[in-house]
Amino acid sequence: MTSEPAPPAPAVPTRPIAILGGTGPAGTGLALRWARAQESIIIGSRDPQRARDVAAVIRGKVGFGALVSGMENSAACAAADILMLTVPFDGQAALLKQLKPAITEGSILIDATVPLAASVGGRASRTLGVWQGSAAQQAAELVPKGVSVVAAFHNISAELLNEDSPLDCDVIVCSDDPDAAQLTRELAAKIPGVRAIDGGKLENARTVEQITALLIGLNIRHKGHAGIRITGLPPEAYR
Amino acid sequence: MTSEPAPPAPAVPTRPIAILGGTGPAGTGLALRWARAQESIIIGSRDPQRARDVAAVIRGKVGFGALVSGMENSAACAAADILMLTVPFDGQAALLKQLKPAITEGSILIDATVPLAASVGGRASRTLGVWQGSAAQQAAELVPKGVSVVAAFHNISAELLNEDSPLDCDVIVCSDDPDAAQLTRELAAKIPGVRAIDGGKLENARTVEQITALLIGLNIRHKGHAGIRITGLPPEAYR
Repeated sequence: MTSEPAPPAPAVPTRPIAILGGTGPAGTGLALRWARAQESIIIGSRDPQRARDVAAVIRGKVGFGALVSGMENSAACAAADILMLTVPFDGQAALLKQLKPAITEGSILIDATVPLAASVGGRASRTLGVWQGSAAQQAAELVPKGVSVVAAFHNISAELLNEDSPLDCDVIVCSDDPDAAQLTRELAAKIPGVRAIDGGKLENARTVEQITALLIGLNIRHKGHAGIRITGLPPEAYR
Repeated sequence: MTSEPAPPAPAVPTRPIAILGGTGPAGTGLALRWARAQESIIIGSRDPQRARDVAAVIRGKVGFGALVSGMENSAACAAADILMLTVPFDGQAALLKQLKPAITEGSILIDATVPLAASVGGRASRTLGVWQGSAAQQAAELVPKGVSVVAAFHNISAELLNEDSPLDCDVIVCSDDPDAAQLTRELAAKIPGVRAIDGGKLENARTVEQITALLIGLNIRHKGHAGIRITGLPPEAYR
Protein backbone atom coordinates (compact mmCIF):
# COMPACT_ATOMS: atom_id res chain seq x y z
CA MET A 1 0.00 0.00 0.00
CA THR A 2 1.39 3.34 -1.00
CA SER A 3 0.50 6.59 0.64
CA GLU A 4 -1.33 9.01 -1.56
CA PRO A 5 -0.56 12.71 -1.53
CA ALA A 6 -3.07 14.82 0.39
CA PRO A 7 -5.62 16.45 -1.88
CA PRO A 8 -5.01 20.14 -2.56
CA ALA A 9 -6.87 22.58 -0.33
CA PRO A 10 -10.08 23.76 -1.97
CA ALA A 11 -9.64 27.13 -3.66
CA VAL A 12 -12.92 28.48 -2.24
CA PRO A 13 -14.21 27.43 1.20
CA THR A 14 -17.80 26.30 1.11
CA ARG A 15 -19.18 28.91 3.53
CA PRO A 16 -18.22 32.49 2.71
CA ILE A 17 -18.70 35.08 5.44
CA ALA A 18 -20.57 38.23 4.43
CA ILE A 19 -19.60 41.19 6.60
CA LEU A 20 -22.57 43.54 6.45
CA GLY A 21 -21.69 47.17 6.98
CA GLY A 22 -18.22 45.78 6.44
CA THR A 23 -16.42 48.96 5.40
CA GLY A 24 -16.14 50.33 8.96
CA PRO A 25 -13.15 49.58 11.20
CA ALA A 26 -14.71 46.55 12.95
CA GLY A 27 -15.73 45.06 9.60
CA THR A 28 -12.40 45.59 7.85
CA GLY A 29 -10.53 44.29 10.89
CA LEU A 30 -12.52 41.06 11.05
CA ALA A 31 -12.24 40.68 7.26
CA LEU A 32 -8.48 41.10 7.44
CA ARG A 33 -8.03 38.55 10.22
CA TRP A 34 -10.36 35.98 8.69
CA ALA A 35 -8.94 36.41 5.18
CA ARG A 36 -5.52 35.70 6.65
CA ALA A 37 -7.01 32.52 8.12
CA GLN A 38 -8.07 31.48 4.58
CA GLU A 39 -11.75 32.27 5.09
CA SER A 40 -13.67 33.52 2.07
CA ILE A 41 -14.98 37.03 2.80
CA ILE A 42 -17.59 39.21 1.14
CA ILE A 43 -17.51 42.85 2.23
CA GLY A 44 -21.06 44.21 2.19
CA SER A 45 -21.90 47.90 1.94
CA ARG A 46 -24.73 50.14 0.82
CA ASP A 47 -22.34 51.28 -1.91
CA PRO A 48 -21.05 48.29 -3.94
CA GLN A 49 -18.13 50.29 -5.36
CA ARG A 50 -17.01 51.21 -1.85
CA ALA A 51 -17.30 47.53 -0.87
CA ARG A 52 -15.12 46.49 -3.82
CA ASP A 53 -12.55 49.21 -3.02
CA VAL A 54 -12.30 48.10 0.61
CA ALA A 55 -12.07 44.46 -0.47
CA ALA A 56 -9.17 45.35 -2.77
CA VAL A 57 -7.34 47.08 0.08
CA ILE A 58 -7.77 44.02 2.29
CA ARG A 59 -6.61 41.69 -0.50
CA GLY A 60 -3.53 43.89 -0.84
CA LYS A 61 -2.79 43.57 2.87
CA VAL A 62 -3.36 39.81 3.00
CA GLY A 63 -1.48 39.05 -0.21
CA PHE A 64 -1.58 36.12 -2.60
CA GLY A 65 -4.57 33.82 -2.26
CA ALA A 66 -6.79 36.24 -0.34
CA LEU A 67 -10.47 35.53 -0.95
CA VAL A 68 -12.10 38.92 -0.38
CA SER A 69 -14.74 40.44 -2.63
CA GLY A 70 -17.14 43.36 -2.26
CA MET A 71 -20.88 43.61 -2.92
CA GLU A 72 -23.97 45.59 -2.04
CA ASN A 73 -25.31 44.36 1.33
CA SER A 74 -28.33 42.45 -0.10
CA ALA A 75 -26.21 40.70 -2.70
CA ALA A 76 -23.70 39.81 0.02
CA CYS A 77 -26.51 38.28 2.11
CA ALA A 78 -27.74 36.21 -0.80
CA ALA A 79 -24.22 34.93 -1.53
CA ALA A 80 -23.40 33.80 2.01
CA ASP A 81 -24.93 31.91 4.87
CA ILE A 82 -22.70 33.31 7.60
CA LEU A 83 -23.57 36.97 8.06
CA MET A 84 -21.49 39.21 10.34
CA LEU A 85 -23.22 42.46 11.27
CA THR A 86 -20.93 45.37 12.15
CA VAL A 87 -23.01 48.52 12.00
CA PRO A 88 -23.65 51.29 14.52
CA PHE A 89 -26.75 50.70 16.64
CA ASP A 90 -28.72 53.45 14.92
CA GLY A 91 -28.41 51.54 11.63
CA GLN A 92 -29.03 48.01 12.88
CA ALA A 93 -32.82 47.69 12.80
CA ALA A 94 -33.31 49.52 9.51
CA LEU A 95 -30.61 47.46 7.79
CA LEU A 96 -32.02 44.16 9.04
CA LYS A 97 -35.53 45.10 7.87
CA GLN A 98 -34.14 46.01 4.47
CA LEU A 99 -32.09 42.81 4.18
CA LYS A 100 -34.80 40.45 5.46
CA PRO A 101 -35.87 39.25 1.98
CA ALA A 102 -32.24 38.54 1.05
CA ILE A 103 -31.34 36.49 4.13
CA THR A 104 -31.71 32.79 3.38
CA GLU A 105 -33.19 30.27 5.80
CA GLY A 106 -30.53 28.42 7.73
CA SER A 107 -28.20 31.41 7.75
CA ILE A 108 -26.36 32.46 10.87
CA LEU A 109 -26.33 36.14 11.78
CA ILE A 110 -23.47 37.11 14.08
CA ASP A 111 -24.30 40.44 15.68
CA ALA A 112 -21.70 42.72 17.23
CA THR A 113 -23.97 45.72 17.68
CA VAL A 114 -23.63 47.75 20.87
CA PRO A 115 -26.46 50.14 21.80
CA LEU A 116 -24.14 53.03 22.64
CA ALA A 117 -25.78 56.26 23.75
CA ALA A 118 -23.57 57.87 21.09
CA SER A 119 -26.16 56.56 18.59
CA VAL A 120 -28.52 59.31 19.76
CA GLY A 121 -25.91 61.97 20.44
CA GLY A 122 -24.98 60.74 23.94
CA ARG A 123 -21.75 59.33 25.26
CA ALA A 124 -19.99 56.28 23.84
CA SER A 125 -19.30 55.20 27.42
CA ARG A 126 -23.03 54.84 28.13
CA THR A 127 -25.64 52.51 26.66
CA LEU A 128 -29.28 52.84 25.75
CA GLY A 129 -31.92 50.49 27.09
CA VAL A 130 -33.19 48.19 24.37
CA TRP A 131 -36.75 46.96 24.81
CA GLN A 132 -35.80 43.36 23.94
CA GLY A 133 -32.92 43.45 26.43
CA SER A 134 -30.02 43.80 24.01
CA ALA A 135 -29.21 44.76 20.44
CA ALA A 136 -28.68 41.07 19.69
CA GLN A 137 -32.16 40.20 20.93
CA GLN A 138 -33.54 43.04 18.79
CA ALA A 139 -31.74 41.47 15.83
CA ALA A 140 -33.27 38.08 16.65
CA GLU A 141 -36.70 39.66 16.34
CA LEU A 142 -35.93 41.12 12.93
CA VAL A 143 -34.34 38.21 11.05
CA PRO A 144 -36.45 35.71 9.06
CA LYS A 145 -37.63 32.51 10.71
CA GLY A 146 -34.99 29.79 10.62
CA VAL A 147 -32.09 32.22 11.00
CA SER A 148 -29.99 31.86 14.14
CA VAL A 149 -28.58 34.93 15.84
CA VAL A 150 -25.28 34.83 17.70
CA ALA A 151 -23.89 37.75 19.72
CA ALA A 152 -20.09 38.06 19.60
CA PHE A 153 -17.08 40.29 18.91
CA HIS A 154 -18.41 43.28 20.89
CA ASN A 155 -15.37 43.62 23.13
CA ILE A 156 -12.59 43.32 20.59
CA SER A 157 -10.70 46.48 19.64
CA ALA A 158 -11.39 47.45 16.01
CA GLU A 159 -8.11 49.38 15.92
CA LEU A 160 -6.08 46.35 17.01
CA LEU A 161 -7.97 44.06 14.61
CA ASN A 162 -6.72 46.23 11.74
CA GLU A 163 -3.10 45.85 12.84
CA ASP A 164 -0.80 42.87 12.46
CA SER A 165 -0.07 41.79 16.06
CA PRO A 166 -1.96 39.03 17.84
CA LEU A 167 -4.85 40.27 19.94
CA ASP A 168 -4.92 39.90 23.73
CA CYS A 169 -8.60 39.36 24.49
CA ASP A 170 -11.41 36.87 24.80
CA VAL A 171 -14.60 36.83 22.76
CA ILE A 172 -17.74 35.89 24.69
CA VAL A 173 -20.24 34.17 22.43
CA CYS A 174 -23.95 34.10 23.29
CA SER A 175 -26.67 32.29 21.34
CA ASP A 176 -29.74 30.13 21.76
CA ASP A 177 -28.45 27.89 18.92
CA PRO A 178 -25.54 25.75 20.17
CA ASP A 179 -24.33 24.85 16.66
CA ALA A 180 -24.29 28.46 15.51
CA ALA A 181 -22.48 29.41 18.72
CA GLN A 182 -19.86 26.72 18.16
CA LEU A 183 -19.23 27.83 14.57
CA THR A 184 -18.84 31.41 15.83
CA ARG A 185 -16.40 30.32 18.54
CA GLU A 186 -14.36 28.54 15.87
CA LEU A 187 -14.30 31.74 13.79
CA ALA A 188 -13.25 33.77 16.83
CA ALA A 189 -10.44 31.36 17.62
CA LYS A 190 -9.04 31.88 14.10
CA ILE A 191 -8.01 35.40 15.14
CA PRO A 192 -4.51 35.13 16.65
CA GLY A 193 -4.55 35.74 20.40
CA VAL A 194 -8.30 35.41 20.78
CA ARG A 195 -9.90 32.78 22.96
CA ALA A 196 -13.62 32.11 22.50
CA ILE A 197 -15.84 31.47 25.50
CA ASP A 198 -19.36 30.06 25.57
CA GLY A 199 -21.34 32.86 27.21
CA GLY A 200 -24.61 30.96 27.22
CA LYS A 201 -27.94 32.16 25.93
CA LEU A 202 -28.51 35.15 23.67
CA GLU A 203 -30.06 37.12 26.55
CA ASN A 204 -26.58 37.31 28.14
CA ALA A 205 -25.57 39.57 25.25
CA ARG A 206 -26.97 42.47 27.23
CA THR A 207 -24.03 42.38 29.61
CA VAL A 208 -21.48 41.65 26.90
CA GLU A 209 -22.75 44.64 24.90
CA GLN A 210 -22.50 46.91 27.94
CA ILE A 211 -18.94 45.84 28.61
CA THR A 212 -18.04 47.61 25.36
CA ALA A 213 -19.27 50.93 26.75
CA LEU A 214 -17.16 50.34 29.86
CA LEU A 215 -14.11 49.55 27.70
CA ILE A 216 -14.69 52.69 25.63
CA GLY A 217 -14.74 54.68 28.87
CA LEU A 218 -11.46 53.04 29.90
CA ASN A 219 -9.96 53.83 26.48
CA ILE A 220 -10.92 57.49 26.82
CA ARG A 221 -9.67 57.70 30.42
CA HIS A 222 -6.45 55.75 30.00
CA LYS A 223 -5.70 56.18 26.28
CA GLY A 224 -5.62 52.51 25.35
CA HIS A 225 -7.33 49.82 23.31
CA ALA A 226 -8.95 47.85 26.09
CA GLY A 227 -10.12 44.27 25.85
CA ILE A 228 -11.08 41.66 28.42
CA ARG A 229 -9.75 38.30 29.45
CA ILE A 230 -11.82 35.93 31.57
CA THR A 231 -9.69 34.23 34.21
CA GLY A 232 -10.42 31.34 36.56
CA LEU A 233 -12.14 28.95 34.16
CA PRO A 234 -10.89 25.46 33.33
CA PRO A 235 -8.97 25.11 30.02
CA GLU A 236 -11.87 23.40 28.28
CA ALA A 237 -13.99 26.55 28.69
CA TYR A 238 -11.90 28.31 26.04
CA ARG A 239 -12.73 26.90 22.63
CA MET B 1 25.67 63.77 60.60
CA THR B 2 24.65 60.25 61.62
CA SER B 3 21.75 58.34 60.18
CA GLU B 4 18.97 57.56 62.60
CA PRO B 5 17.16 54.21 62.58
CA ALA B 6 13.74 54.24 60.91
CA PRO B 7 10.88 54.58 63.41
CA PRO B 8 9.04 51.32 64.15
CA ALA B 9 5.89 50.69 62.14
CA PRO B 10 2.79 51.78 64.05
CA ALA B 11 1.12 48.87 65.81
CA VAL B 12 -2.38 49.97 64.76
CA PRO B 13 -3.01 51.61 61.38
CA THR B 14 -4.92 54.86 61.72
CA ARG B 15 -7.86 53.92 59.53
CA PRO B 16 -9.54 50.61 60.38
CA ILE B 17 -11.78 49.06 57.76
CA ALA B 18 -15.23 47.96 58.91
CA ILE B 19 -16.60 45.17 56.76
CA LEU B 20 -20.36 45.41 57.12
CA GLY B 21 -22.18 42.16 56.61
CA GLY B 22 -18.68 40.83 56.96
CA THR B 23 -19.42 37.26 57.97
CA GLY B 24 -20.32 36.13 54.43
CA PRO B 25 -17.75 34.69 52.01
CA ALA B 26 -16.94 38.02 50.30
CA GLY B 27 -16.50 39.77 53.65
CA THR B 28 -14.32 37.10 55.22
CA GLY B 29 -12.22 36.86 52.08
CA LEU B 30 -11.52 40.60 51.96
CA ALA B 31 -10.87 40.61 55.72
CA LEU B 32 -8.38 37.77 55.36
CA ARG B 33 -6.47 39.40 52.51
CA TRP B 34 -6.39 42.85 54.09
CA ALA B 35 -5.45 41.52 57.53
CA ARG B 36 -2.53 39.75 55.87
CA ALA B 37 -1.56 43.15 54.42
CA GLN B 38 -1.46 44.56 57.99
CA GLU B 39 -4.73 46.44 57.69
CA SER B 40 -6.86 46.77 60.82
CA ILE B 41 -10.20 45.06 60.23
CA ILE B 42 -13.51 45.16 62.06
CA ILE B 43 -15.96 42.45 61.04
CA GLY B 44 -19.49 43.83 61.30
CA SER B 45 -22.56 41.66 61.67
CA ARG B 46 -26.11 41.88 62.99
CA ASP B 47 -24.97 39.38 65.61
CA PRO B 48 -21.92 40.68 67.52
CA GLN B 49 -21.04 37.20 68.81
CA ARG B 50 -20.99 35.84 65.27
CA ALA B 51 -18.79 38.79 64.24
CA ARG B 52 -16.34 38.02 67.05
CA ASP B 53 -16.30 34.32 66.18
CA VAL B 54 -15.55 35.03 62.50
CA ALA B 55 -12.89 37.56 63.51
CA ALA B 56 -11.22 34.89 65.65
CA VAL B 57 -11.18 32.43 62.75
CA ILE B 58 -9.55 35.03 60.50
CA ARG B 59 -6.99 35.92 63.19
CA GLY B 60 -6.19 32.23 63.41
CA LYS B 61 -5.62 32.03 59.65
CA VAL B 62 -3.50 35.19 59.49
CA GLY B 63 -1.45 34.44 62.57
CA PHE B 64 0.57 36.62 64.90
CA GLY B 65 -0.11 40.35 64.67
CA ALA B 66 -3.47 40.09 62.91
CA LEU B 67 -5.68 43.07 63.71
CA VAL B 68 -9.18 41.67 63.30
CA SER B 69 -12.04 42.28 65.70
CA GLY B 70 -15.80 41.73 65.52
CA MET B 71 -18.70 44.04 66.40
CA GLU B 72 -22.36 44.67 65.71
CA ASN B 73 -22.69 46.56 62.38
CA SER B 74 -23.55 49.96 63.93
CA ALA B 75 -20.67 49.80 66.38
CA ALA B 76 -18.36 48.81 63.51
CA CYS B 77 -19.53 51.86 61.54
CA ALA B 78 -18.88 54.17 64.47
CA ALA B 79 -15.40 52.74 64.99
CA ALA B 80 -14.21 53.09 61.39
CA ASP B 81 -14.22 55.58 58.57
CA ILE B 82 -13.66 53.09 55.77
CA LEU B 83 -16.78 50.98 55.43
CA MET B 84 -16.87 47.98 53.11
CA LEU B 85 -20.38 46.75 52.33
CA THR B 86 -20.69 43.07 51.39
CA VAL B 87 -24.34 42.12 51.71
CA PRO B 88 -26.80 40.54 49.29
CA PHE B 89 -28.80 43.11 47.31
CA ASP B 90 -32.01 42.37 49.20
CA GLY B 91 -30.34 43.50 52.41
CA GLN B 92 -28.49 46.57 51.13
CA ALA B 93 -31.06 49.36 51.40
CA ALA B 94 -32.48 48.27 54.75
CA LEU B 95 -29.01 47.95 56.29
CA LEU B 96 -27.90 51.36 55.03
CA LYS B 97 -31.07 52.99 56.40
CA GLN B 98 -30.47 51.33 59.75
CA LEU B 99 -26.80 52.32 59.87
CA LYS B 100 -27.27 55.90 58.68
CA PRO B 101 -27.08 57.44 62.18
CA ALA B 102 -23.87 55.51 62.91
CA ILE B 103 -21.99 56.48 59.74
CA THR B 104 -19.75 59.46 60.45
CA GLU B 105 -19.28 62.36 58.06
CA GLY B 106 -16.16 61.97 55.94
CA SER B 107 -16.45 58.21 55.87
CA ILE B 108 -15.96 56.24 52.68
CA LEU B 109 -18.45 53.52 51.84
CA ILE B 110 -17.11 50.91 49.42
CA ASP B 111 -20.04 49.06 47.94
CA ALA B 112 -19.73 45.63 46.29
CA THR B 113 -23.44 44.95 46.02
CA VAL B 114 -24.72 43.27 42.88
CA PRO B 115 -28.47 43.42 42.13
CA LEU B 116 -28.73 39.75 41.24
CA ALA B 117 -32.17 38.49 40.28
CA ALA B 118 -31.50 35.75 42.85
CA SER B 119 -32.40 38.41 45.45
CA VAL B 120 -36.04 37.98 44.47
CA GLY B 121 -35.95 34.29 43.71
CA GLY B 122 -34.62 34.63 40.14
CA ARG B 123 -31.34 33.52 38.63
CA ALA B 124 -27.93 34.57 39.88
CA SER B 125 -26.86 34.97 36.26
CA ARG B 126 -29.41 37.77 35.73
CA THR B 127 -29.69 41.21 37.28
CA LEU B 128 -32.56 43.40 38.40
CA GLY B 129 -33.00 46.93 37.13
CA VAL B 130 -32.26 49.44 39.87
CA TRP B 131 -34.08 52.76 39.58
CA GLN B 132 -30.93 54.76 40.33
CA GLY B 133 -28.97 52.81 37.70
CA SER B 134 -26.95 50.55 39.97
CA ALA B 135 -26.81 49.23 43.52
CA ALA B 136 -23.91 51.60 44.17
CA GLN B 137 -25.96 54.60 43.09
CA GLN B 138 -28.77 53.40 45.35
CA ALA B 139 -26.24 53.29 48.20
CA ALA B 140 -25.14 56.84 47.38
CA GLU B 141 -28.73 57.98 47.89
CA LEU B 142 -28.94 56.31 51.29
CA VAL B 143 -25.71 57.36 53.02
CA PRO B 144 -25.51 60.58 55.08
CA LYS B 145 -24.31 63.76 53.40
CA GLY B 146 -20.53 64.02 53.33
CA VAL B 147 -20.04 60.27 52.84
CA SER B 148 -18.40 59.19 49.58
CA VAL B 149 -19.50 56.00 47.89
CA VAL B 150 -17.10 53.89 45.86
CA ALA B 151 -18.12 50.84 43.83
CA ALA B 152 -15.53 48.06 43.76
CA PHE B 153 -14.77 44.37 44.34
CA HIS B 154 -17.87 43.06 42.49
CA ASN B 155 -15.97 40.83 40.11
CA ILE B 156 -13.58 39.13 42.48
CA SER B 157 -14.26 35.51 43.40
CA ALA B 158 -15.22 35.19 47.07
CA GLU B 159 -14.09 31.55 47.03
CA LEU B 160 -10.62 32.44 45.78
CA LEU B 161 -10.35 35.36 48.23
CA ASN B 162 -10.75 32.87 51.07
CA GLU B 163 -7.87 30.75 49.80
CA ASP B 164 -4.16 31.41 49.99
CA SER B 165 -3.07 31.76 46.35
CA PRO B 166 -2.70 35.11 44.60
CA LEU B 167 -5.79 36.17 42.69
CA ASP B 168 -5.77 36.57 38.90
CA CYS B 169 -8.16 39.45 38.32
CA ASP B 170 -8.58 43.19 38.09
CA VAL B 171 -10.81 45.33 40.30
CA ILE B 172 -12.59 48.17 38.50
CA VAL B 173 -13.17 51.08 40.86
CA CYS B 174 -15.91 53.65 40.19
CA SER B 175 -16.61 56.77 42.23
CA ASP B 176 -17.44 60.44 41.92
CA ASP B 177 -14.85 61.18 44.65
CA PRO B 178 -11.32 60.82 43.20
CA ASP B 179 -9.64 60.62 46.64
CA ALA B 180 -11.98 57.90 47.86
CA ALA B 181 -11.44 56.04 44.58
CA GLN B 182 -7.67 56.26 44.95
CA LEU B 183 -7.77 54.95 48.52
CA THR B 184 -9.95 52.07 47.33
CA ARG B 185 -7.56 51.28 44.46
CA GLU B 186 -4.72 51.17 46.99
CA LEU B 187 -6.71 48.72 49.13
CA ALA B 188 -7.45 46.57 46.08
CA ALA B 189 -3.80 46.49 45.10
CA LYS B 190 -2.94 45.09 48.55
CA ILE B 191 -4.59 41.82 47.53
CA PRO B 192 -1.92 39.68 45.85
CA GLY B 193 -2.53 39.32 42.12
CA VAL B 194 -5.10 42.10 41.93
CA ARG B 195 -4.63 45.17 39.78
CA ALA B 196 -6.91 48.15 40.41
CA ILE B 197 -8.27 50.19 37.51
CA ASP B 198 -9.92 53.59 37.60
CA GLY B 199 -13.34 52.89 36.12
CA GLY B 200 -14.48 56.50 36.23
CA LYS B 201 -17.69 57.81 37.72
CA LEU B 202 -20.00 55.93 40.06
CA GLU B 203 -22.62 55.57 37.30
CA ASN B 204 -20.27 53.14 35.55
CA ALA B 205 -20.88 50.72 38.41
CA ARG B 206 -23.97 49.56 36.58
CA THR B 207 -21.86 47.70 34.06
CA VAL B 208 -19.35 46.46 36.61
CA GLU B 209 -22.18 45.06 38.73
CA GLN B 210 -23.69 43.28 35.75
CA ILE B 211 -20.38 41.69 34.86
CA THR B 212 -20.74 39.71 38.10
CA ALA B 213 -23.93 38.11 36.83
CA LEU B 214 -22.14 37.19 33.61
CA LEU B 215 -19.26 35.68 35.59
CA ILE B 216 -21.68 33.70 37.75
CA GLY B 217 -23.22 32.33 34.55
CA LEU B 218 -19.74 31.36 33.32
CA ASN B 219 -19.00 29.70 36.67
CA ILE B 220 -22.18 27.65 36.46
CA ARG B 221 -21.58 26.71 32.80
CA HIS B 222 -17.86 25.97 33.03
CA LYS B 223 -17.41 25.06 36.72
CA GLY B 224 -14.85 27.73 37.57
CA HIS B 225 -14.20 30.84 39.64
CA ALA B 226 -14.22 33.44 36.91
CA GLY B 227 -12.67 36.87 37.14
CA ILE B 228 -11.74 39.50 34.57
CA ARG B 229 -8.55 41.10 33.39
CA ILE B 230 -8.60 44.29 31.34
CA THR B 231 -6.00 44.18 28.57
CA GLY B 232 -4.72 46.84 26.21
CA LEU B 233 -4.28 49.72 28.65
CA PRO B 234 -0.96 51.46 29.35
CA PRO B 235 0.84 50.35 32.55
CA GLU B 236 -0.06 53.55 34.40
CA ALA B 237 -3.76 52.64 34.14
CA TYR B 238 -3.24 49.89 36.71
CA ARG B 239 -2.73 51.43 40.14
